[in-house]
Amino acid sequence: MKKSLGATTILAPAPTWVIGTFDANGRANAATIAWGGICCSKPPCVAISMRAATLTHGNIMARRAFTVNIPSEDLVRQADYFGIASGRDVDKFAATGLTPVKSELVDAPFVGEFPMVVECTVLHVVEIGLHTQFIAEILDIKADESVLAEGGLDIAKLRPIVFAASGRTYHGLTKSIGPAFNVGRCYIAEKP
Amino acid sequence: MKKSLGATTILAPAPTWVIGTFDANGRANAATIAWGGICCSKPPCVAISMRAATLTHGNIMARRAFTVNIPSEDLVRQADYFGIASGRDVDKFAATGLTPVKSELVDAPFVGEFPMVVECTVLHVVEIGLHTQFIAEILDIKADESVLAEGGLDIAKLRPIVFAASGRTYHGLTKSIGPAFNVGRCYIAEKP
Repeated sequence: MKKSLGATTILAPAPTWVIGTFDANGRANAATIAWGGICCSKPPCVAISMRAATLTHGNIMARRAFTVNIPSEDLVRQADYFGIASGRDVDKFAATGLTPVKSELVDAPFVGEFPMVVECTVLHVVEIGLHTQFIAEILDIKADESVLAEGGLDIAKLRPIVFAASGRTYHGLTKSIGPAFNVGRCYIAEKP
Repeated sequence: MKKSLGATTILAPAPTWVIGTFDANGRANAATIAWGGICCSKPPCVAISMRAATLTHGNIMARRAFTVNIPSEDLVRQADYFGIASGRDVDKFAATGLTPVKSELVDAPFVGEFPMVVECTVLHVVEIGLHTQFIAEILDIKADESVLAEGGLDIAKLRPIVFAASGRTYHGLTKSIGPAFNVGRCYIAEKP
Protein backbone atom coordinates (compact mmCIF):
# COMPACT_ATOMS: atom_id res chain seq x y z
CA MET A 1 0.00 0.00 0.00
CA LYS A 2 1.56 3.24 -1.13
CA LYS A 3 1.35 6.41 0.92
CA SER A 4 0.36 9.73 -0.68
CA LEU A 5 3.06 12.40 -0.37
CA GLY A 6 1.04 15.11 -2.11
CA ALA A 7 1.85 17.18 -5.20
CA THR A 8 5.52 18.06 -4.89
CA THR A 9 8.70 18.20 -6.96
CA ILE A 10 10.76 15.58 -5.10
CA LEU A 11 11.37 13.41 -8.17
CA ALA A 12 14.85 11.91 -8.27
CA PRO A 13 17.45 12.18 -9.61
CA ALA A 14 17.73 15.89 -10.48
CA PRO A 15 20.84 17.52 -11.96
CA THR A 16 23.07 20.18 -10.41
CA TRP A 17 23.82 22.56 -13.27
CA VAL A 18 25.17 26.09 -13.28
CA ILE A 19 23.72 28.48 -15.87
CA GLY A 20 26.07 31.11 -17.27
CA THR A 21 24.65 34.38 -18.68
CA PHE A 22 25.60 37.99 -19.37
CA ASP A 23 23.53 40.81 -17.86
CA ALA A 24 22.62 44.10 -19.58
CA ASN A 25 26.03 45.53 -18.70
CA GLY A 26 27.91 42.51 -20.06
CA ARG A 27 28.77 41.25 -16.59
CA ALA A 28 28.94 37.48 -16.25
CA ASN A 29 26.61 35.68 -13.86
CA ALA A 30 26.33 32.05 -12.76
CA ALA A 31 23.20 30.52 -11.21
CA THR A 32 22.57 26.94 -10.12
CA ILE A 33 19.46 25.03 -11.10
CA ALA A 34 18.04 21.56 -10.58
CA TRP A 35 14.94 21.95 -12.74
CA GLY A 36 16.14 20.83 -16.15
CA GLY A 37 17.06 18.00 -18.46
CA ILE A 38 17.68 16.95 -22.03
CA CYS A 39 14.46 17.33 -24.05
CA CYS A 40 15.32 16.38 -27.65
CA SER A 41 17.95 14.34 -29.49
CA LYS A 42 17.65 16.03 -32.94
CA PRO A 43 18.33 18.89 -32.73
CA PRO A 44 20.09 18.23 -29.42
CA CYS A 45 18.23 20.38 -26.91
CA VAL A 46 18.22 20.99 -23.19
CA ALA A 47 15.41 22.50 -21.11
CA ILE A 48 16.05 24.60 -18.02
CA SER A 49 13.54 26.40 -15.82
CA MET A 50 14.02 29.72 -14.02
CA ARG A 51 11.76 31.92 -11.92
CA ALA A 52 10.92 35.24 -13.62
CA ALA A 53 12.26 37.08 -10.55
CA THR A 54 15.83 35.92 -11.15
CA LEU A 55 18.60 37.87 -12.85
CA THR A 56 19.32 34.86 -15.06
CA HIS A 57 15.73 34.83 -16.37
CA GLY A 58 16.06 38.42 -17.58
CA ASN A 59 19.49 37.77 -19.01
CA ILE A 60 18.26 34.82 -21.06
CA MET A 61 15.19 36.73 -22.27
CA ALA A 62 17.49 39.53 -23.49
CA ARG A 63 20.38 37.52 -24.92
CA ARG A 64 18.54 34.32 -25.95
CA ALA A 65 21.60 32.32 -24.94
CA PHE A 66 23.17 30.61 -21.95
CA THR A 67 25.71 27.96 -21.00
CA VAL A 68 25.15 24.88 -18.86
CA ASN A 69 28.21 24.29 -16.69
CA ILE A 70 28.54 20.86 -15.10
CA PRO A 71 30.49 20.79 -11.84
CA SER A 72 32.42 17.80 -10.57
CA GLU A 73 32.02 16.75 -6.93
CA ASP A 74 35.00 18.83 -5.82
CA LEU A 75 33.18 21.97 -7.03
CA VAL A 76 30.10 21.33 -4.88
CA ARG A 77 30.69 24.34 -2.62
CA GLN A 78 31.00 26.74 -5.55
CA ALA A 79 27.96 25.21 -7.26
CA ASP A 80 25.92 25.52 -4.07
CA TYR A 81 26.97 29.14 -3.60
CA PHE A 82 25.87 29.96 -7.18
CA GLY A 83 22.41 28.80 -6.11
CA ILE A 84 22.31 30.77 -2.86
CA ALA A 85 23.59 34.23 -3.85
CA SER A 86 22.02 36.59 -6.41
CA GLY A 87 24.06 38.24 -9.15
CA ARG A 88 22.10 41.41 -8.39
CA ASP A 89 23.86 41.68 -5.03
CA VAL A 90 27.32 40.31 -5.67
CA ASP A 91 29.78 39.26 -8.37
CA LYS A 92 29.65 35.51 -7.85
CA PHE A 93 32.73 34.87 -9.99
CA ALA A 94 34.76 37.28 -7.88
CA ALA A 95 33.42 35.78 -4.64
CA THR A 96 34.48 32.25 -5.62
CA GLY A 97 37.60 33.16 -7.54
CA LEU A 98 36.33 31.32 -10.62
CA THR A 99 36.85 32.65 -14.14
CA PRO A 100 34.12 33.75 -16.58
CA VAL A 101 35.15 32.90 -20.14
CA LYS A 102 33.23 34.39 -23.07
CA SER A 103 31.85 31.70 -25.37
CA GLU A 104 32.81 32.12 -29.01
CA LEU A 105 29.61 30.41 -30.12
CA VAL A 106 26.86 32.01 -28.03
CA ASP A 107 26.32 35.31 -26.23
CA ALA A 108 27.04 33.90 -22.77
CA PRO A 109 30.00 33.10 -20.51
CA PHE A 110 31.05 29.75 -19.17
CA VAL A 111 32.86 28.87 -15.95
CA GLY A 112 36.47 28.24 -16.95
CA GLU A 113 37.26 25.88 -14.08
CA PHE A 114 34.20 23.66 -14.60
CA PRO A 115 35.17 20.46 -16.44
CA MET A 116 32.26 20.41 -18.89
CA VAL A 117 30.37 23.29 -20.48
CA VAL A 118 27.45 23.32 -22.91
CA GLU A 119 26.78 26.26 -25.23
CA CYS A 120 23.09 26.86 -25.89
CA THR A 121 20.84 29.15 -27.91
CA VAL A 122 17.16 29.51 -27.01
CA LEU A 123 14.53 27.99 -29.33
CA HIS A 124 11.34 28.14 -27.22
CA VAL A 125 10.17 29.98 -24.11
CA VAL A 126 7.34 28.23 -22.27
CA GLU A 127 5.52 30.05 -19.46
CA ILE A 128 4.38 27.34 -17.06
CA GLY A 129 3.72 29.02 -13.71
CA LEU A 130 6.25 30.16 -11.14
CA HIS A 131 8.93 28.96 -13.55
CA THR A 132 9.59 29.80 -17.18
CA GLN A 133 11.08 26.98 -19.20
CA PHE A 134 13.77 27.73 -21.77
CA ILE A 135 14.24 25.09 -24.45
CA ALA A 136 17.60 25.63 -26.08
CA GLU A 137 19.61 24.00 -28.82
CA ILE A 138 23.01 22.63 -27.81
CA LEU A 139 25.54 24.06 -30.27
CA ASP A 140 28.63 22.50 -28.70
CA ILE A 141 29.94 20.77 -25.60
CA LYS A 142 33.45 21.47 -24.40
CA ALA A 143 35.28 19.45 -21.78
CA ASP A 144 38.65 19.37 -20.05
CA GLU A 145 41.05 16.60 -21.06
CA SER A 146 40.95 15.50 -17.41
CA VAL A 147 37.39 14.15 -17.84
CA LEU A 148 37.94 12.46 -21.20
CA ALA A 149 39.02 8.94 -22.07
CA GLU A 150 39.67 7.69 -25.59
CA GLY A 151 38.34 11.02 -26.90
CA GLY A 152 34.96 10.77 -25.21
CA LEU A 153 33.48 11.84 -21.91
CA ASP A 154 34.28 9.52 -18.98
CA ILE A 155 31.52 9.79 -16.39
CA ALA A 156 33.80 8.34 -13.68
CA LYS A 157 36.20 11.22 -14.25
CA LEU A 158 33.51 13.90 -14.64
CA ARG A 159 31.92 12.96 -11.30
CA PRO A 160 28.73 15.04 -11.80
CA ILE A 161 26.53 16.02 -8.86
CA VAL A 162 22.95 14.88 -8.28
CA PHE A 163 20.53 17.08 -6.31
CA ALA A 164 18.03 15.21 -4.16
CA ALA A 165 15.14 17.62 -3.63
CA SER A 166 13.51 15.47 -0.93
CA GLY A 167 16.21 16.06 1.67
CA ARG A 168 18.01 18.91 -0.11
CA THR A 169 21.28 17.01 -0.37
CA TYR A 170 23.95 16.58 -3.03
CA HIS A 171 25.23 13.17 -4.12
CA GLY A 172 27.87 11.70 -6.39
CA LEU A 173 27.43 8.68 -8.64
CA THR A 174 28.43 5.13 -7.80
CA LYS A 175 30.34 3.01 -10.26
CA SER A 176 28.19 1.57 -13.06
CA ILE A 177 25.48 -0.80 -11.89
CA GLY A 178 24.95 -2.05 -15.45
CA PRO A 179 25.10 -1.23 -19.15
CA ALA A 180 21.99 0.43 -20.61
CA PHE A 181 20.08 -1.25 -23.46
CA ASN A 182 21.64 -4.46 -22.23
CA VAL A 183 20.90 -5.55 -18.63
CA GLY A 184 17.19 -5.80 -19.44
CA ARG A 185 17.72 -8.27 -22.26
CA CYS A 186 17.10 -11.09 -19.79
CA TYR A 187 13.38 -10.40 -20.23
CA ILE A 188 13.42 -10.78 -24.00
CA ALA A 189 11.95 -14.15 -24.85
CA GLU A 190 13.99 -16.33 -27.15
CA LYS A 191 12.32 -16.99 -30.46
CA PRO A 192 11.54 -20.66 -31.08
CA MET B 1 42.15 24.26 -22.88
CA LYS B 2 38.84 22.56 -23.39
CA LYS B 3 38.21 20.11 -26.20
CA SER B 4 35.10 20.36 -28.39
CA LEU B 5 32.90 17.26 -28.23
CA GLY B 6 30.32 18.54 -30.72
CA ALA B 7 26.58 19.04 -30.33
CA THR B 8 25.36 16.01 -28.40
CA THR B 9 23.07 15.10 -25.50
CA ILE B 10 25.66 13.67 -23.09
CA LEU B 11 24.79 16.06 -20.26
CA ALA B 12 24.92 14.43 -16.83
CA PRO B 13 23.19 13.40 -14.69
CA ALA B 14 20.03 12.21 -16.47
CA PRO B 15 17.18 10.35 -14.77
CA THR B 16 15.98 6.80 -15.36
CA TRP B 17 12.21 7.07 -15.28
CA VAL B 18 9.52 4.69 -16.50
CA ILE B 19 6.43 6.25 -18.10
CA GLY B 20 3.12 4.45 -17.54
CA THR B 21 0.29 4.88 -20.06
CA PHE B 22 -2.85 3.16 -21.37
CA ASP B 23 -3.19 2.44 -25.09
CA ALA B 24 -6.39 2.73 -27.17
CA ASN B 25 -7.50 -0.70 -25.94
CA GLY B 26 -6.88 0.14 -22.29
CA ARG B 27 -3.80 -2.03 -22.12
CA ALA B 28 -1.07 -0.78 -19.79
CA ASN B 29 2.36 0.06 -21.16
CA ALA B 30 5.63 1.11 -19.52
CA ALA B 31 8.47 2.88 -21.34
CA THR B 32 11.78 4.11 -19.96
CA ILE B 33 13.08 7.61 -20.65
CA ALA B 34 16.10 9.68 -19.71
CA TRP B 35 15.02 12.93 -21.38
CA GLY B 36 13.08 14.68 -18.65
CA GLY B 37 13.14 16.67 -15.45
CA ILE B 38 11.18 18.90 -13.11
CA CYS B 39 10.23 22.12 -14.92
CA CYS B 40 8.13 24.17 -12.47
CA SER B 41 7.58 24.39 -8.71
CA LYS B 42 4.09 25.98 -8.74
CA PRO B 43 2.17 24.22 -10.10
CA PRO B 44 4.53 21.29 -9.61
CA CYS B 45 5.31 20.09 -13.12
CA VAL B 46 7.52 17.56 -14.82
CA ALA B 47 8.63 17.52 -18.46
CA ILE B 48 9.27 14.32 -20.38
CA SER B 49 10.19 13.89 -24.03
CA MET B 50 9.13 11.07 -26.35
CA ARG B 51 9.67 10.36 -30.04
CA ALA B 52 6.45 10.59 -32.08
CA ALA B 53 7.07 7.04 -33.34
CA THR B 54 6.60 5.51 -29.88
CA LEU B 55 3.46 3.89 -28.53
CA THR B 56 3.75 6.02 -25.40
CA HIS B 57 3.67 9.24 -27.45
CA GLY B 58 0.35 8.27 -29.02
CA ASN B 59 -1.04 7.10 -25.68
CA ILE B 60 -0.24 10.43 -24.02
CA MET B 61 -1.65 12.43 -26.95
CA ALA B 62 -4.92 10.48 -26.62
CA ARG B 63 -5.25 10.24 -22.83
CA ARG B 64 -3.42 13.45 -21.81
CA ALA B 65 -2.08 11.63 -18.76
CA PHE B 66 0.83 9.45 -17.65
CA THR B 67 2.68 8.29 -14.57
CA VAL B 68 6.37 8.63 -13.82
CA ASN B 69 7.60 5.50 -12.06
CA ILE B 70 10.94 5.75 -10.27
CA PRO B 71 12.83 2.47 -9.98
CA SER B 72 15.29 1.66 -7.23
CA GLU B 73 18.66 0.12 -8.13
CA ASP B 74 17.37 -3.42 -7.68
CA LEU B 75 14.83 -2.79 -10.48
CA VAL B 76 17.49 -1.77 -13.02
CA ARG B 77 16.95 -4.82 -15.25
CA GLN B 78 13.21 -4.23 -15.48
CA ALA B 79 13.72 -0.51 -16.09
CA ASP B 80 16.23 -1.23 -18.84
CA TYR B 81 13.90 -3.74 -20.48
CA PHE B 82 11.08 -1.16 -20.51
CA GLY B 83 13.40 0.99 -22.61
CA ILE B 84 14.40 -1.76 -25.05
CA ALA B 85 11.10 -3.45 -25.92
CA SER B 86 8.09 -1.82 -27.58
CA GLY B 87 4.57 -2.18 -26.20
CA ARG B 88 3.44 -2.67 -29.80
CA ASP B 89 5.22 -6.02 -29.89
CA VAL B 90 4.90 -7.38 -26.38
CA ASP B 91 3.10 -6.94 -23.05
CA LYS B 92 6.01 -5.58 -21.02
CA PHE B 93 4.23 -6.06 -17.70
CA ALA B 94 3.63 -9.73 -18.49
CA ALA B 95 7.23 -10.19 -19.65
CA THR B 96 8.66 -8.81 -16.39
CA GLY B 97 5.97 -10.10 -14.06
CA LEU B 98 5.31 -6.59 -12.75
CA THR B 99 1.82 -5.33 -11.98
CA PRO B 100 -0.01 -2.49 -13.73
CA VAL B 101 -2.19 -0.63 -11.23
CA LYS B 102 -4.82 1.84 -12.48
CA SER B 103 -4.33 5.29 -11.00
CA GLU B 104 -7.40 6.71 -9.30
CA LEU B 105 -6.30 10.25 -10.12
CA VAL B 106 -5.26 10.14 -13.77
CA ASP B 107 -6.08 8.01 -16.83
CA ALA B 108 -2.85 6.00 -16.65
CA PRO B 109 -1.40 2.95 -14.88
CA PHE B 110 1.55 2.84 -12.53
CA VAL B 111 3.99 0.02 -11.83
CA GLY B 112 2.87 -1.51 -8.55
CA GLU B 113 6.29 -2.83 -7.54
CA PHE B 114 8.11 0.48 -8.16
CA PRO B 115 8.73 2.30 -4.85
CA MET B 116 7.70 5.78 -6.05
CA VAL B 117 5.09 6.80 -8.59
CA VAL B 118 4.04 10.23 -9.82
CA GLU B 119 0.57 10.88 -11.28
CA CYS B 120 0.56 13.50 -14.02
CA THR B 121 -1.88 15.29 -16.32
CA VAL B 122 -0.64 17.05 -19.46
CA LEU B 123 -0.65 20.86 -19.58
CA HIS B 124 1.47 21.63 -22.66
CA VAL B 125 2.72 19.74 -25.70
CA VAL B 126 5.86 21.23 -27.27
CA GLU B 127 7.03 19.97 -30.65
CA ILE B 128 10.82 20.39 -30.64
CA GLY B 129 12.20 18.07 -33.32
CA LEU B 130 12.67 14.32 -33.12
CA HIS B 131 11.16 14.50 -29.64
CA THR B 132 7.88 15.94 -28.43
CA GLN B 133 7.98 17.38 -24.93
CA PHE B 134 5.04 16.83 -22.59
CA ILE B 135 4.81 19.27 -19.71
CA ALA B 136 2.51 17.81 -17.08
CA GLU B 137 1.20 18.83 -13.70
CA ILE B 138 2.05 16.50 -10.83
CA LEU B 139 -1.22 15.72 -9.06
CA ASP B 140 0.22 13.36 -6.45
CA ILE B 141 3.25 11.30 -5.55
CA LYS B 142 2.82 7.92 -3.92
CA ALA B 143 5.59 5.93 -2.30
CA ASP B 144 6.09 2.65 -0.46
CA GLU B 145 6.68 2.84 3.29
CA SER B 146 10.01 1.12 2.61
CA VAL B 147 11.44 4.33 1.07
CA LEU B 148 10.06 6.73 3.69
CA ALA B 149 11.57 8.03 6.90
CA GLU B 150 9.76 10.28 9.35
CA GLY B 151 6.91 10.61 6.85
CA GLY B 152 9.06 11.91 4.02
CA LEU B 153 11.02 10.40 1.16
CA ASP B 154 14.46 9.06 2.12
CA ILE B 155 16.74 9.17 -0.91
CA ALA B 156 19.09 6.61 0.66
CA LYS B 157 16.21 4.14 0.78
CA LEU B 158 14.77 5.06 -2.63
CA ARG B 159 18.14 4.46 -4.35
CA PRO B 160 17.13 6.02 -7.71
CA ILE B 161 19.05 5.28 -10.90
CA VAL B 162 21.07 7.79 -12.93
CA PHE B 163 21.54 7.27 -16.67
CA ALA B 164 24.88 8.42 -18.06
CA ALA B 165 24.32 9.00 -21.77
CA SER B 166 28.04 9.34 -22.53
CA GLY B 167 28.84 5.68 -21.88
CA ARG B 168 25.27 4.38 -21.76
CA THR B 169 25.61 3.14 -18.19
CA TYR B 170 23.39 3.19 -15.10
CA HIS B 171 24.60 4.43 -11.72
CA GLY B 172 23.37 4.67 -8.16
CA LEU B 173 23.90 7.62 -5.82
CA THR B 174 26.64 7.92 -3.22
CA LYS B 175 25.88 9.04 0.30
CA SER B 176 25.35 12.80 0.64
CA ILE B 177 28.39 14.89 -0.23
CA GLY B 178 26.85 17.96 1.40
CA PRO B 179 23.64 19.79 2.31
CA ALA B 180 22.23 22.07 -0.41
CA PHE B 181 21.76 25.78 0.28
CA ASN B 182 24.42 25.33 2.91
CA VAL B 183 27.87 24.08 1.81
CA GLY B 184 28.32 27.16 -0.38
CA ARG B 185 27.87 29.59 2.51
CA CYS B 186 31.65 29.66 2.93
CA TYR B 187 31.72 32.14 0.02
CA ILE B 188 29.29 34.58 1.62
CA ALA B 189 31.33 37.50 2.93
CA GLU B 190 30.69 38.48 6.52
CA LYS B 191 29.23 41.92 6.91
CA PRO B 192 31.46 44.32 8.84
